[in-house]
Amino acid sequence: MRFVAEIDIMPLKEILDPQGKAVKLGLKNLGISQVEDVRIGKHISLELEADNENVAEELVKSACKKLLANLIMEDYSYKITVMA
Amino acid sequence: MRFVAEIDIMPLKEILDPQGKAVKLGLKNLGISQVEDVRIGKHISLELEADNENVAEELVKSACKKLLANLIMEDYSYKITVMA
Repeated sequence: MRFVAEIDIMPLKEILDPQGKAVKLGLKNLGISQVEDVRIGKHISLELEADNENVAEELVKSACKKLLANLIMEDYSYKITVMA
Repeated sequence: MRFVAEIDIMPLKEILDPQGKAVKLGLKNLGISQVEDVRIGKHISLELEADNENVAEELVKSACKKLLANLIMEDYSYKITVMA
């Protein structure tokens, strides 16, 4: 079966996000001053083959822990769906 | 009212994604060879003040068009929720 995992990898809340601060300032300069906070991370879309959803989930977790996320500074969340 | 917008900005499907190819190879080298395709983009979380959800949505669209997404090479999707 083919699955699609939509993964979000974000900096931990306690970690300073200079990129987010820069974007917030940029938006303010463009007249969008209602933005109170900006946090920027990665969105990764994985297509993978697996026998079932549990196996797919284990693969996704393993990929996040081994390569995609730096668990010291980031956390990850994911949504797995069967590909039509 | 305060809203949170979760925005995904991804390279257009037709555009080559060298970063995605590199991650796919990296996963394979780590023994995760069931991954067929990898696409990498940005996930941006915005906190903003707005009178209602429609106003919040207009602000998010404006922020994406003006600064967050390069519409020549990327497309964006978003989910807006009221902050508790």
